[in-house]
Amino acid sequence: MSDSRDWLQEISACVGPKGLTMDAEDMAPWLTDWRGRYTGSAQALVSPASTREVAQVVKIANAHAIAIVPQGGNSGMVGGATPDQSGESIILSLRRMNTIRSVSPCDQLAVCDAGVILQNFHEALAEHGQRFPLTLGGKGSATIGGLVSTNAGGTQVLRHGTMRSLVAGIEAVLPDGSILNSLAALKKDNRGYDLKQLLIGGEGTLGIVTAATLKTVPALVDRCVTWVGVKTPQAAYALFQFLNARESQSLEGFEIIPATCLDSVLEHIPGTRAPLAQPSAWNVLIEITRDQHDATDPRITAETLLEKAFEENLAQDAAFASNETQAEAFWKIRDSIAEAERAAGPALQHDISVPISKMADFITESTPIMEAKFPGTEVAAFGHMGDGNVHYHVKAPPGAAGTGWTLEYAAKITPMVHDLVVAAGGSISAEHGIGQNKRAELGRLSDKAQLLALQAIKSAIDPKNIMNPGKLVPLASEQRAS
Amino acid sequence: MSDSRDWLQEISACVGPKGLTMDAEDMAPWLTDWRGRYTGSAQALVSPASTREVAQVVKIANAHAIAIVPQGGNSGMVGGATPDQSGESIILSLRRMNTIRSVSPCDQLAVCDAGVILQNFHEALAEHGQRFPLTLGGKGSATIGGLVSTNAGGTQVLRHGTMRSLVAGIEAVLPDGSILNSLAALKKDNRGYDLKQLLIGGEGTLGIVTAATLKTVPALVDRCVTWVGVKTPQAAYALFQFLNARESQSLEGFEIIPATCLDSVLEHIPGTRAPLAQPSAWNVLIEITRDQHDATDPRITAETLLEKAFEENLAQDAAFASNETQAEAFWKIRDSIAEAERAAGPALQHDISVPISKMADFITESTPIMEAKFPGTEVAAFGHMGDGNVHYHVKAPPGAAGTGWTLEYAAKITPMVHDLVVAAGGSISAEHGIGQNKRAELGRLSDKAQLLALQAIKSAIDPKNIMNPGKLVPLASEQRAS
Repeated sequence: MSDSRDWLQEISACVGPKGLTMDAEDMAPWLTDWRGRYTGSAQALVSPASTREVAQVVKIANAHAIAIVPQGGNSGMVGGATPDQSGESIILSLRRMNTIRSVSPCDQLAVCDAGVILQNFHEALAEHGQRFPLTLGGKGSATIGGLVSTNAGGTQVLRHGTMRSLVAGIEAVLPDGSILNSLAALKKDNRGYDLKQLLIGGEGTLGIVTAATLKTVPALVDRCVTWVGVKTPQAAYALFQFLNARESQSLEGFEIIPATCLDSVLEHIPGTRAPLAQPSAWNVLIEITRDQHDATDPRITAETLLEKAFEENLAQDAAFASNETQAEAFWKIRDSIAEAERAAGPALQHDISVPISKMADFITESTPIMEAKFPGTEVAAFGHMGDGNVHYHVKAPPGAAGTGWTLEYAAKITPMVHDLVVAAGGSISAEHGIGQNKRAELGRLSDKAQLLALQAIKSAIDPKNIMNPGKLVPLASEQRAS
Repeated sequence: MSDSRDWLQEISACVGPKGLTMDAEDMAPWLTDWRGRYTGSAQALVSPASTREVAQVVKIANAHAIAIVPQGGNSGMVGGATPDQSGESIILSLRRMNTIRSVSPCDQLAVCDAGVILQNFHEALAEHGQRFPLTLGGKGSATIGGLVSTNAGGTQVLRHGTMRSLVAGIEAVLPDGSILNSLAALKKDNRGYDLKQLLIGGEGTLGIVTAATLKTVPALVDRCVTWVGVKTPQAAYALFQFLNARESQSLEGFEIIPATCLDSVLEHIPGTRAPLAQPSAWNVLIEITRDQHDATDPRITAETLLEKAFEENLAQDAAFASNETQAEAFWKIRDSIAEAERAAGPALQHDISVPISKMADFITESTPIMEAKFPGTEVAAFGHMGDGNVHYHVKAPPGAAGTGWTLEYAAKITPMVHDLVVAAGGSISAEHGIGQNKRAELGRLSDKAQLLALQAIKSAIDPKNIMNPGKLVPLASEQRAS
């Protein structure tokens, strides 16, 4: 380590008093991830106000081999923005860079600083008759830079894709402090390796995203949210195929919810009520939208399609939200599952994907295997069925709360879930990323070719390993150990 | 160099007699690019029959540091599949690997070996009621592997994107001979850097694509092709915005054609006739499609929209193709421009892009600059206006044929076109790639950060520089010289 006063003074001179703190109280909220599973420490919290300042800070850190942990809203799910416990790194917060640089409804493009909060971006676009079709629970704190760096997903991926599909251009500071400016939105550009694709989902390990050009779409005119009862995940998939073949352009959401999750929500979340009169083993939440006034009313589209689906015996029962309040009530059930499950007791959570066509069988085949191997547990798989991505919770046996069950079983249950996912050709991280949380598992389960390529790219772009070290890329030394 | 008999024997043992030739006559067609601008030589033409064989060949080549030039249909535009003149490399042809491994209309996915020819793929999908929405002039020889490796474009990018948007999974052999298997089509997968994005558009410099999982869409029910006369490129762009705001989901083509290109076609291509009674300074070719029987007839959509466009003075005149024969006749005019221009005389061709909203101004502002600087030349910019990508031809003064004009002026005119493109925030290679042809210009015009990153990735993944050396990535030594 260098003498810390030297380089901290250099950084201080660069970012000014607003841009640097070493105060323990100021830093505390940013040293623990929001789920409270990781806590680290840092020499300083540096908050540059511009891309130029980010570049200068990175140059200084590079010269002194100081590790940098880039951070947006600190709402990640895998500890990717939390420093390690060595106390030697700095947190580089992008939150002061919160300007929406431009909104162009004609071009359906907007340019945002990395620190712009998703919800603020949504609100700004609404004033222009546009929307950004990506949303998630943490939208009140998640930043554009973090969403890009984690290739965020959410509930609208079905139609609009993940963040990767919505990024038209990027500006980033590379580990040597140079600025990569690829903000120009070129629909066609074949000048070699597409570097922005590495930064998207790179979790800040190859550089710091400082701004992005994002694709926007017309604001919604209206939507119809429908709650449907089905017998099995297979029936849900059949219904998905039926709808997707007919209305792929207006089908924006297709979420699956087992009875057990609905029951948890009804029990633990005040103000919720069952959408259907008769309980159903599985439920599907469907959102059909329109963004042009002269398109068909989505309520009519939904009713017409569901009528046909009933005729073909693809669905048992359905409730159509008759207004926005009811639509939001249906979505609230879906969005409260994680909270309700937490209230109900301990559970091990997995964010997994398999090919869309295999998800129903994955759920019904893996559930009895897991429940037999770990008696008393219950599997609850819910979420983005239309994307082949569910949140796969293995719930502790009744009475396990407070017994340290999660800690005891994490090392047994999670690898087994992941093994089943890999056997089904799936991914152990569908949308949450790798961070600290899944790095060892990524090392254990990756093909050797894949792993060597990740390591080679990391070393090539960040030879001093100063960019978010200890995140995402499993090190070769860790591989040998496993 | 190793003793060639040793490693050639190893390769021969691996691929068998059908998979190896050193016969000059057999090799000749594959040593020159199809435009006839590059000719190289090679020690052998190796044609593996399987991914396993490709991996073995690469392992052998790696051990002996033999350069490999991967080749598909040899229909690239930038010499990217032509070996250098040292005669030391081998051509690795993927053409024997031509199996369509699976077609799944339910999942809208198909898995193809790298050597499958695009047209054969189109025909196979038609039998399943599906189509692959990417096509280009060379479809009778272009292979899936080549299309992936060059991130090919074509005339349907407007709605469906370039090859990058259509690749759901990839299988590739990396420079060390390991196999990267990412064929599983996962809509969400956040396991670190997305390696397939590097191979897409990587021009075989990081590995050899051996197969791809591709997204398909429903077969067309019908289409309406319309020829519209407009006064200026700005008017064409206004018309594009008007149509795209109303029919983005059915608008599949929007091509711009100046009068000079139409005139060349009418003069040099037998059987063509002017679509409009009155000539127009600029022409637009519009394709509106439907892929569901119960959607609006595209002819009605086109007529309704154009009627409104006339009212708003966005278009001067229009001809609607009344049947498929006429639709094909309209497209034939567009597709024959390059051939007609060649017949008319020498020209320097540039495949460029700028942000879509800037293309009209780029054309009208750059044209007088070029024509003033090079008296007697004429600029003809035509093509994918809706993608911000035109083919920008600078035609020689009359009488230049046979005088060596192209050779004399290439070094003066092309850099100037590229400088103007870069000043407009554009790309010197929109869809054709870099290959041998634009490598020096890429080196001259790239940001340092971009260039260093390209070089670092290339060295990291291919440390011996055996994968298509001399293509795409400008070397550091070349940079110092410029």
